[in-house]
Amino acid sequence: MFKFETLHQSKKSAARVGKIYTAHGVIDTPNFVAVGTNGTIKALDSATVCEIGLQLMFCNTYHLLLQPGTKIVKEAGGLHNFIHRKLPIITDSGGFQVFSLAYGSVADELKSRGTKNSGELVLKIDEEGVLFRSYRDGSKFLLTPETSIQAQKDLGADIIIPFDELPPYHIEKEALQLSIARTHRWEERSLRAHLKDPNGQAMYGVIHGGINLDMRKNSCDVLTKMDFDGYAIGGSMGKNKAEMQSILTHTLPLLPKEKPNHLLGIGDLESIDQGILLGIDTFDSSYPTRAARHGVALTWQGQLKLTKAENANTFSPIDKNCTCPTCRQFNLAYIHHLFKAKELTALTLATIHNLHFMVEYMARIREKIMDDLI
Amino acid sequence: MFKFETLHQSKKSAARVGKIYTAHGVIDTPNFVAVGTNGTIKALDSATVCEIGLQLMFCNTYHLLLQPGTKIVKEAGGLHNFIHRKLPIITDSGGFQVFSLAYGSVADELKSRGTKNSGELVLKIDEEGVLFRSYRDGSKFLLTPETSIQAQKDLGADIIIPFDELPPYHIEKEALQLSIARTHRWEERSLRAHLKDPNGQAMYGVIHGGINLDMRKNSCDVLTKMDFDGYAIGGSMGKNKAEMQSILTHTLPLLPKEKPNHLLGIGDLESIDQGILLGIDTFDSSYPTRAARHGVALTWQGQLKLTKAENANTFSPIDKNCTCPTCRQFNLAYIHHLFKAKELTALTLATIHNLHFMVEYMARIREKIMDDLI
Repeated sequence: MFKFETLHQSKKSAARVGKIYTAHGVIDTPNFVAVGTNGTIKALDSATVCEIGLQLMFCNTYHLLLQPGTKIVKEAGGLHNFIHRKLPIITDSGGFQVFSLAYGSVADELKSRGTKNSGELVLKIDEEGVLFRSYRDGSKFLLTPETSIQAQKDLGADIIIPFDELPPYHIEKEALQLSIARTHRWEERSLRAHLKDPNGQAMYGVIHGGINLDMRKNSCDVLTKMDFDGYAIGGSMGKNKAEMQSILTHTLPLLPKEKPNHLLGIGDLESIDQGILLGIDTFDSSYPTRAARHGVALTWQGQLKLTKAENANTFSPIDKNCTCPTCRQFNLAYIHHLFKAKELTALTLATIHNLHFMVEYMARIREKIMDDLI
Repeated sequence: MFKFETLHQSKKSAARVGKIYTAHGVIDTPNFVAVGTNGTIKALDSATVCEIGLQLMFCNTYHLLLQPGTKIVKEAGGLHNFIHRKLPIITDSGGFQVFSLAYGSVADELKSRGTKNSGELVLKIDEEGVLFRSYRDGSKFLLTPETSIQAQKDLGADIIIPFDELPPYHIEKEALQLSIARTHRWEERSLRAHLKDPNGQAMYGVIHGGINLDMRKNSCDVLTKMDFDGYAIGGSMGKNKAEMQSILTHTLPLLPKEKPNHLLGIGDLESIDQGILLGIDTFDSSYPTRAARHGVALTWQGQLKLTKAENANTFSPIDKNCTCPTCRQFNLAYIHHLFKAKELTALTLATIHNLHFMVEYMARIREKIMDDLI
């Protein structure tokens, strides 16, 4: 069922155009993957998301485990049925969120923010997995390679992710080594659990190693020996674009060319441009949808602050050449007004535009690669 | 341009089926008018509202005056262009809101709630009109019959409302008499201002008199002598259904049969059923859309609390026989989940359902009247 093919390898860079085939349809690569944490892109419904042309949607197992619970999604006939999405879905393992609870997110850490006592929600971390409490109702959950994969079987996404540990950015070399070794054991257990009932799903191994290039290499060596359908690049990607560039430059050549790869949780335009040239196939990020809800529109001329005063009487769309439902129907003055009046409709219209922009942005990138322009 | 015709007068009651013709299309009556205060039905966009079949939308001049300002809407080519709505719109005069600031709403008063110091926003009320401050930026606005009509000309709705005073529910007879007399003078000034430039718009006179039936009669006598295109019933409708029943029973026979009428701000199902039998043509209310945002769905079997626990694993739509986009695509379990996860999409899906329900509810009422069943 799952298949990847490369249609064109750029003569100018490691960029490539391909197609991922899944039970729920094709994903053209390179592509952007919008994040619908709770089984919906915030402020949109599934029909609109399909209409915009988003080929792959990212849902978070951790959140769905806590609400509504993966058992209910399974009873509904899986996530596609539950959220009424016909196109492909990818889920993560829950590891990222549960370790963010324990250690704080990398961003918290880099900015020296506290973890808001969320550490108290994590009760135990050992070789078996992680025992934590639901922030919703205090009930206990044991997340292990096996329970994470079971949850992802219940959800039934087209692409799933093995359970891994997210080590903090500031970590001693020895501790990082121990963490990665355990992550590799967890990924192996995840793969084994997955292969007992592949269920038409594909699993991407997650390359770790943080900013240590030797460990990245070791992670590639270990994981490419396992029969994953593709590879995601996870863990800390450093504190700036240069560190990410260095990690990707060293890591990507170590991954098998015949399998698709994914850059986890990064999808700002600058990082996309950078990652494409190094051969990244898919990027997920909540950035474009979150920016929309904060009144920032993405355009070919850069970011546009929808709420700035001069838009109050600008009677043209966000982008005159944009064909999205928002730009076809509404002008900036109206969208500005809806934001000022705190109308929910503002968030919907801006999200539609930004997501459509990302779809167009990636289509244009694919064309450029086909023409060996990048 | 504006025309009203009665297609059928029930043999069983004062209920009637008719059609209102406007420059932006036909309104079948009796009908429900959803409220889009700021120029949008909350959580929906115009295309969805049209798709649902809402023939008339109510926008509030007071709110649009303060944000974005009616000048901007005029520059945009009027409210239809600004909000991208092809179908008819009705605006009110702003009087209701500005007097709610001064006196508190009738509901506040009946429940002995304070007016939250909003009284301080009203600076002066005299024969000329009302001087008040914007709650947004403190700037002063003078609302008079002439400025209200000018604002409603700038907005360009199909049906507009003369400037009137909303007296408090608890008011001495003499004070009420003075208020109504002034309202009649204001309505006459409004009509005069309107007729200087009718602009294809229709104006409905607003019948006042509170719960005093003699004053209701007097208001009908005075206002039906003026050349309004229709009549709205405003002011206090009493503190319960019995008082409203009494007011409508006495007032409606005093209105000209050949003109359409509208019941201002009332649109719960019980009041609609009651008003229909007495001959009301249109009802506006924010009830169905507000109920939706609070997780209450309207169905033929009564109200359904979407967030109640048993819906968590109910894998059927809100209403199996409903043809709305929400019920065609999503089941209760998903909608329950979206509400629990505090997703904005929940509000959109519930609003679509409730508005579609109101459209169907009114269509069924029209059929019943055509068949003389009510």
